Amino acid sequence: MRFFSDNAALVHPKVMDAVMAANSVDSAYDGDRWSAQLNLAFSEIFERPVRCLSIATGTAANCIALSAMVRPYQGVICHEEAHIEMDEAGAPGFYTGGAKLLLTKGEGAKLTCDAISAKLSSIRADVHQVQAGALSITNATEYGLVYRANEVPALGQLAREKGLKFHMDGARFANAMASSTCSPADMTWRAGVDALSFGFVKNGGMSAEALIFFNDEMADMATYQRKQAGHLCSKGRFMAAQLLAMIDGDLWLKNARAANDAAAIIAKAASSRLLHPVQANEIFLRLTANEAAKLRHAGFDFYDWGEGGARFVTSWHHDASDVQPLADAIAAL
Amino acid sequence: MRFFSDNAALVHPKVMDAVMAANSVDSAYDGDRWSAQLNLAFSEIFERPVRCLSIATGTAANCIALSAMVRPYQGVICHEEAHIEMDEAGAPGFYTGGAKLLLTKGEGAKLTCDAISAKLSSIRADVHQVQAGALSITNATEYGLVYRANEVPALGQLAREKGLKFHMDGARFANAMASSTCSPADMTWRAGVDALSFGFVKNGGMSAEALIFFNDEMADMATYQRKQAGHLCSKGRFMAAQLLAMIDGDLWLKNARAANDAAAIIAKAASSRLLHPVQANEIFLRLTANEAAKLRHAGFDFYDWGEGGARFVTSWHHDASDVQPLADAIAAL
Amino acid sequence: MRFFSDNAALVHPKVMDAVMAANSVDSAYDGDRWSAQLNLAFSEIFERPVRCLSIATGTAANCIALSAMVRPYQGVICHEEAHIEMDEAGAPGFYTGGAKLLLTKGEGAKLTCDAISAKLSSIRADVHQVQAGALSITNATEYGLVYRANEVPALGQLAREKGLKFHMDGARFANAMASSTCSPADMTWRAGVDALSFGFVKNGGMSAEALIFFNDEMADMATYQRKQAGHLCSKGRFMAAQLLAMIDGDLWLKNARAANDAAAIIAKAASSRLLHPVQANEIFLRLTANEAAKLRHAGFDFYDWGEGGARFVTSWHHDASDVQPLADAIAAL
Amino acid sequence: MRFFSDNAALVHPKVMDAVMAANSVDSAYDGDRWSAQLNLAFSEIFERPVRCLSIATGTAANCIALSAMVRPYQGVICHEEAHIEMDEAGAPGFYTGGAKLLLTKGEGAKLTCDAISAKLSSIRADVHQVQAGALSITNATEYGLVYRANEVPALGQLAREKGLKFHMDGARFANAMASSTCSPADMTWRAGVDALSFGFVKNGGMSAEALIFFNDEMADMATYQRKQAGHLCSKGRFMAAQLLAMIDGDLWLKNARAANDAAAIIAKAASSRLLHPVQANEIFLRLTANEAAKLRHAGFDFYDWGEGGARFVTSWHHDASDVQPLADAIAAL
Repeated sequence: MRFFSDNAALVHPKVMDAVMAANSVDSAYDGDRWSAQLNLAFSEIFERPVRCLSIATGTAANCIALSAMVRPYQGVICHEEAHIEMDEAGAPGFYTGGAKLLLTKGEGAKLTCDAISAKLSSIRADVHQVQAGALSITNATEYGLVYRANEVPALGQLAREKGLKFHMDGARFANAMASSTCSPADMTWRAGVDALSFGFVKNGGMSAEALIFFNDEMADMATYQRKQAGHLCSKGRFMAAQLLAMIDGDLWLKNARAANDAAAIIAKAASSRLLHPVQANEIFLRLTANEAAKLRHAGFDFYDWGEGGARFVTSWHHDASDVQPLADAIAAL
Repeated sequence: MRFFSDNAALVHPKVMDAVMAANSVDSAYDGDRWSAQLNLAFSEIFERPVRCLSIATGTAANCIALSAMVRPYQGVICHEEAHIEMDEAGAPGFYTGGAKLLLTKGEGAKLTCDAISAKLSSIRADVHQVQAGALSITNATEYGLVYRANEVPALGQLAREKGLKFHMDGARFANAMASSTCSPADMTWRAGVDALSFGFVKNGGMSAEALIFFNDEMADMATYQRKQAGHLCSKGRFMAAQLLAMIDGDLWLKNARAANDAAAIIAKAASSRLLHPVQANEIFLRLTANEAAKLRHAGFDFYDWGEGGARFVTSWHHDASDVQPLADAIAAL
Repeated sequence: MRFFSDNAALVHPKVMDAVMAANSVDSAYDGDRWSAQLNLAFSEIFERPVRCLSIATGTAANCIALSAMVRPYQGVICHEEAHIEMDEAGAPGFYTGGAKLLLTKGEGAKLTCDAISAKLSSIRADVHQVQAGALSITNATEYGLVYRANEVPALGQLAREKGLKFHMDGARFANAMASSTCSPADMTWRAGVDALSFGFVKNGGMSAEALIFFNDEMADMATYQRKQAGHLCSKGRFMAAQLLAMIDGDLWLKNARAANDAAAIIAKAASSRLLHPVQANEIFLRLTANEAAKLRHAGFDFYDWGEGGARFVTSWHHDASDVQPLADAIAAL
Repeated sequence: MRFFSDNAALVHPKVMDAVMAANSVDSAYDGDRWSAQLNLAFSEIFERPVRCLSIATGTAANCIALSAMVRPYQGVICHEEAHIEMDEAGAPGFYTGGAKLLLTKGEGAKLTCDAISAKLSSIRADVHQVQAGALSITNATEYGLVYRANEVPALGQLAREKGLKFHMDGARFANAMASSTCSPADMTWRAGVDALSFGFVKNGGMSAEALIFFNDEMADMATYQRKQAGHLCSKGRFMAAQLLAMIDGDLWLKNARAANDAAAIIAKAASSRLLHPVQANEIFLRLTANEAAKLRHAGFDFYDWGEGGARFVTSWHHDASDVQPLADAIAAL
C-alpha cells in the first residue's frame, strides 16, 4: 500500500465521469460552458463573488498569484520550508522576474505574527534591501498543520498594516477545511487573504487546480499572466469539468475527510513517534532506518524525511482497511 | 456544425480510454510507467533517440524550447504572423527573459531562405542590435501550408551556417506529415531541427502536447525550465497516457488524414475562393459579409479572417457527411 | 572634423568643473548634497514638483521608465525606428520581463494619433494578443524632427483615453526644446507625459542622464528598479553635479541652441539633399558613395545611413567656423 | 572625520586628471582609444589575456557576471551575508531571470569547502529543487577578511568538481591583494575563478568598476548583457580613463595599502574590541551605545553594526594623522 504521496493517488470516479462527459464540441480555451460556471460555483463556496482560474499545477497557481502581488524588486515572506521555497525549482523568482522569498522560521512550517514582524524589522528600509511586498502561507502546512480559526485573521491584519498582499498556498486546503471549525470564507478573504491556490489534484482530481482571487485587479493581471505563461489550456473544458465535479455535493470535503480520518488512525497508533501533531492527511514519524526497512519489507511505501524521520500521506481512497495494517505494523515496531 | 477551431474538437475515444486506464496508483510527476515510455515511443517515430517532455499547451512547449535556445539579449527569427508572435501573449519574451522575435514576411506564413537572409543582413553586427540566435518555423503554417521535402533542409542548412538554433512549431505537425511525402525524421532532425513542438490536442488529444528534443543539452535545460514554469504535472501519467494512445497504431496520422481529407472536400467546392492552397486542415476563403451571414444562418460556424475573409478548420472527427453540406453551401453561394 | 555622433562630443568645461568641485567627502549613493538638489532644480524647469533620478545611460533611463509603466504581458507602442526598438539590444524586453514593443510607422520617426489608433484597433481584445499598456515617443525624433506644440497634447489625450502610460525618450530633449515654441512643462506633463528620459550626455554632459517622473507612484517603483538594475551609483554626487551644472543658467538650452544653429548652417547648404527637415541637430542627406568618399577625403566624419544616405550630427561645441567648411564642401559637390 | 564608507571617500587626483585628459572628441561607447587599452592593461596585471568591461557599479558588475554563469532555474552559492544577498535589492534574481542565491554560513563572511559541500549535499538532485550552477565569494569579505593563498584554489577545485562556475566579488579586491602574499593571478584564474568584479570606486575611482573575465564565452555573453542592461556608457572613454589611471604605476595597490595601513592603526588601538580580525580596510568593533555616542560627539562618523557593534572603514586618503585621533579616542573609552 502506497503512502508516498497524494499525488500518486487515484482520480475520483466522479471526476473521471465529468471528464468523459465534457467530451463534446465546445468553444476553445476557457470559452466553454464548463469554464463559464467556475466563478459562480466557487463564489458559492466562498459566500461572495470570486474569480477562478483553472491551472494545471500548484506551482503555476502559486507563482501566477505571486506575480500579481509583487514587483521584481520586492519580496515574499514565507516559511523557510514552504513549498514555494523548497520544491518549485525557483519558479517564484522566474514568474516575478526576480522577486525574493524572505524566509522565516516557525513550528511545523506555520508562520506567526511574531516571526513575520521580526523578519520585517530585520530589513533596512532602503533601496539596497529587498522590501516585503507579500505574505504567503501554506494551509495545511508542509508538515500537515492547520491554521486555527483565529490565526489567519491575525496574519491578515498584520499584512494589511504592513502593506503586504496575502497569498495562501492551499495545495491541501481541502484537508485543512475538513479539520477546521471555520468556513472557507473565514479562512480566506474574511481573514484578509487576496488569493488562494485551491488544490484538487492531491484530493481526487486529475490535472486541474483552482486559483481563486478575492481581488479583481489581481485576477485581471493573472488572467493575462496565465496565458503568457502558457497555462491557458486550449481545451479548458476538461479542466473546468474536473473542478465542478470536485465541488459538486462537496466532494472535495468528503475526500479530504476520508484522507484525514485515515491519517488519524495511523497517528493514533504512532502517537509516541509523532514529529508533528496530525491535523490533516500527513503523518511525520520518528523512525529508525531499521524500523523503516521493516515497514517497507512489509509492503508499506513512504517517504524518508531526513535523519530518522519518515512521511506518510493518506489519500481520499484510503479507508480503515487500507490503513489499519500500517497502524498495526507501526504499533508493533 | 463547427468549423471554428480544432481546439473545439472532440477527444478521440482511444485517448479517453487511455486516460481511464491510467487511473491507478503510480509515482508522481513523471516517475510513472507511462511517462517512462515516452522517449522510446517517440524515438521510434523519429528513427533515433529523442527526448520527449509532455506539456499542457503548445504555447508553453514553444517557449520552453525557445528558452533553451536563446539568451535574453538574442532574437528568434520567425514569420510576422507566426503563432508565437500573434497569439501567445508575449510568452516568448517572458520565457526567455526578454529575447525578441525578429519578424520576416513570406507567402502563407512560410519562411524562405531569402527572407531570413535579408533579415539577418539588415541587423548590424554590434551589441546595440538584437542578434539572431534561433529560427522558428510553423509546420503546417498558420495558413495551413506544409513545407515541402526540400524546404526544411534548406532552412536547416542556413540556420547551421548562421549559427542559429532551429525550432519547429508543430501544433499541426500531424496534419503536415499526413500530407507530406517525407518522414518525420526527414522533416525534422535530418533537416537540422533541434526541437519540435509536436501537437496532439488539436488532433484528438485532451491536454498533452509533446516537446521533442533532438539535442540533449537543450533537453536537459528544458527539463528544469518545464518545472520552473510550473509545467511538470503532478499526475503526469495522465499526460503520458494520452501521448502514447495517440501514437499507438499511428492514430495521430490517421486522425490528421481524416481532417485533411475533410478539408480537401471543402477546398474543392470553394476552389474559386481560396486565399491559400489547402494542404492540411485549414481553409481560408474569400467571403463577403453577406455570404458569411448566409453560411452562419445555415448553421455553419467559423472564424472571420480580416476584411472579406473566413477561416474554416476541420477536425479528425469530420467525415464527408459532416463537410459535404458545408461544401454544397459554399458552392451554392 | 567629426560629425559622427554627439556621443563623441566634448564634455562642457562647466560640467568638468562641477565634477572636480564635487570631489569632497560626502554621503554615498544619492545621499549627498548634490543629489539632494535634483528634485527641486528640475521642478523649477518643469514648473511643478517632479522626481529626478540620475542614470548613467539613456537606454537604462528609457527602460527603467517603461518597467514602471507596463507588466510583462503588456506592450509599448512606439515607432518602428525608435531607439528602444533599434538600438537598445532588447533592453525593454529585459527590463520589463518580456513586454513587447508594438511598432507603428510615421514620417521622420514621428508618431501620429492615426497611426496609434490603427495599431490599437489591429489588436484583438483578448488574452492571446499583447495589449498596449504604454506609449513611448522620442523628441527630438531619431530623424531630428521635433513635435510641434499641439502634437504631444493630442498624443497625450489619446493615451489617456486608451489607458496608456506615456513616456518620452528625450535623448535630445534639449535640442527639441531649443527649437520649440512651447515650454518644457507644455511639452511634457501638461501634455500628459508621465516620464521623460531627459538626455544630457549628448549635449555636453559626461555620464549622467536625468530620468524625470511626473507621477510619484512610478517614481517610487523606478527608485527601487534603478537599484535592482545596478544603476544607483555609489558616488552619486558626481552624477548629480553634472546635471546641476547643465541646468545652471540654462546651459542645456544654450548648448542645444549652438548645436541646432550649426545644423541649420549645414542644412541650408544641403537643402536640395535633405531626407528630412532639419529641426534639431541631426542632418540626413542624400549622398552617393562617391560624394561620401569625397567628403571623407576632405576630412569630414559622418555616419552612412542606408543606401545613398548619410547622417551628420552637430554638437554644442560646433560653431560656424567648424561647420562652414562642411557646408561649403557639400554645396560644392 | 568620516569613517562611514569608502564610497564616501575622495576620488584620487590622478583619476580626476585622467578624466580631464579624456575630454577630447573620440568614438562613442567603447570604441575610443582608452577603452581599447583595457584588455591589454588588465592582461598584464593578471599575467594572461583577459577581457575587461567597464561598468558603473559593483552591483551591475556582479550580476552581469552571474547572468553569464547560471540559467534562471539554477542557483548561486554564496555567504548569507554576501553583498549580492544583503545589499543589491534582488539584482541577482532580476539579472538572471530568477536564479536563486543558495546561502551558506561562514566565519567573517568567508566561504569554506565544508560549508559549500554541506549546502550541495542538502539539495536533492531532482528538478524540484534549485541546483547550484555557480559559486560567488567576496574578497576581501563583507567583514574585511582576506582569503589566504591556499583557500581560493581549494574553493576553485571544489567548484570544478561540482561543475560550478566561480565568481569573485572584488569590491575591495585591491585591499585584499594589498594584504595578501599571492599575486592577482594566483588569487583568481589560477585558483579557478572565471570572473572577477574588480572594484575601483571605493579605492579612489569615481564611477568605473572593471568586470574581468578569464573565460571568453562568458565575456562574449556579458558584452551583450552589459548593453541590454543599459550599462554600456555612450562616453565610455571617461570610464576607461579612470581604470587606466588606477592601474598606472599600481595606484590601485598604493591606495589600498594606505587604507589598510590606516585600518591597522585603529585595529591596534581597538584590539580588545575587534569583532573580526582586521585584514583589509574595515574594522568591526564592540561598542556600547554610550561609547558610540561619545565617539560621534568627538566628531567621528561611522556605521552602527547591529546591537552593540560598529563598522569603521578607512580610505586611500586616510593617513596616520587622520586615524590616530580616532585610535586614541577608542583607546580612551
